[in-house]
Amino acid sequence: MRASRPVVHPVEAAPPAAAAVAAAAVEAGGAHGGENGAQPRGVRMKDPPGAPGTPGGLGLRLVQAFFAAAALAVMAATDDFPSVSAFCYLVAAAILQCLWSLSLAVVDIYALLVKRSLRNPQAVCIFTIGDGITGTLTLGAACASAGITVLIGNDLNICANNHCASFETATAMAFISWFALAPSCVLNFWSMASR
Amino acid sequence: MRASRPVVHPVEAAPPAAAAVAAAAVEAGGAHGGENGAQPRGVRMKDPPGAPGTPGGLGLRLVQAFFAAAALAVMAATDDFPSVSAFCYLVAAAILQCLWSLSLAVVDIYALLVKRSLRNPQAVCIFTIGDGITGTLTLGAACASAGITVLIGNDLNICANNHCASFETATAMAFISWFALAPSCVLNFWSMASR
Repeated sequence: MRASRPVVHPVEAAPPAAAAVAAAAVEAGGAHGGENGAQPRGVRMKDPPGAPGTPGGLGLRLVQAFFAAAALAVMAATDDFPSVSAFCYLVAAAILQCLWSLSLAVVDIYALLVKRSLRNPQAVCIFTIGDGITGTLTLGAACASAGITVLIGNDLNICANNHCASFETATAMAFISWFALAPSCVLNFWSMASR
Repeated sequence: MRASRPVVHPVEAAPPAAAAVAAAAVEAGGAHGGENGAQPRGVRMKDPPGAPGTPGGLGLRLVQAFFAAAALAVMAATDDFPSVSAFCYLVAAAILQCLWSLSLAVVDIYALLVKRSLRNPQAVCIFTIGDGITGTLTLGAACASAGITVLIGNDLNICANNHCASFETATAMAFISWFALAPSCVLNFWSMASR
């Protein structure tokens, strides 16, 4: 059980000196987690950049949500996307991805504001499973849309009758959202497995 | 550094009694890896079923290779798959998946024959990265093919002119291959992170 969960209660409006002490306690709690012997190659990092509850993690979540929302907007702006199942699936997956990433961004903002570590085992487990599911769905939707887009644009050459540019843009946005999700998922799984 | 690598040299044709001792040493080596304190909920298993070097792992690899080969054979048996890029991509991904899974099946067979544990950190790292790459490619190819198949069969209703059954079968085989790959990848990543 390597979760460092300092008991910080900032709702009591601690004075600045006490807040600094609390922050130091957080740091000490983080450092205390490494008592498990020498780690020669830095395998077990404490809250690596991009883990939940860090500014990097918050940035990754916002990037995911932004690009999922962009894919959703670009695809939904075309008038003929409901005629292709894969494009409807992309819209659904982008909505799910956007909601999930925004929820975790809110959790990250909360953790940053109250200086609370998110290395709680249950929370990390939920984050990992959710990241895995949404990541698989987003990748699947992006690949299905890419298959249709390449079929329309390169194999059949009927781009004149279709919104190829919009389809390609939405697919690319979905792929970028997945690329931003992959590090979050890997880091969460890593911290779940190495606790 | 939790890798348990007993020094077993079965090339010297040990008699059965010595082989049993060597097997016991392997077991002891595996048990010795758990000295790191009490694990209340069995988080760190030693060689769980499905890990590389176990019969379950070998079975998973053979299932992956079989279904990837089946997807390849069914798709390549149709005469019009080269006209769709996604189907060509499925063939390429299935070839890669089949080769990768067969290679690791051979490694697993070797490990089982010489009773050698595959918890070497470098080996597990290579297995995890390879599983991640081939898994992503296989899932992408399966999703792209599924998108095209659904487009042909449900959205456009032109199955009369196409080999819809073959396309659907090949796509389903690729998905099954990916479902068999996912546990291998997760277990490898878990043992890489928890060493």
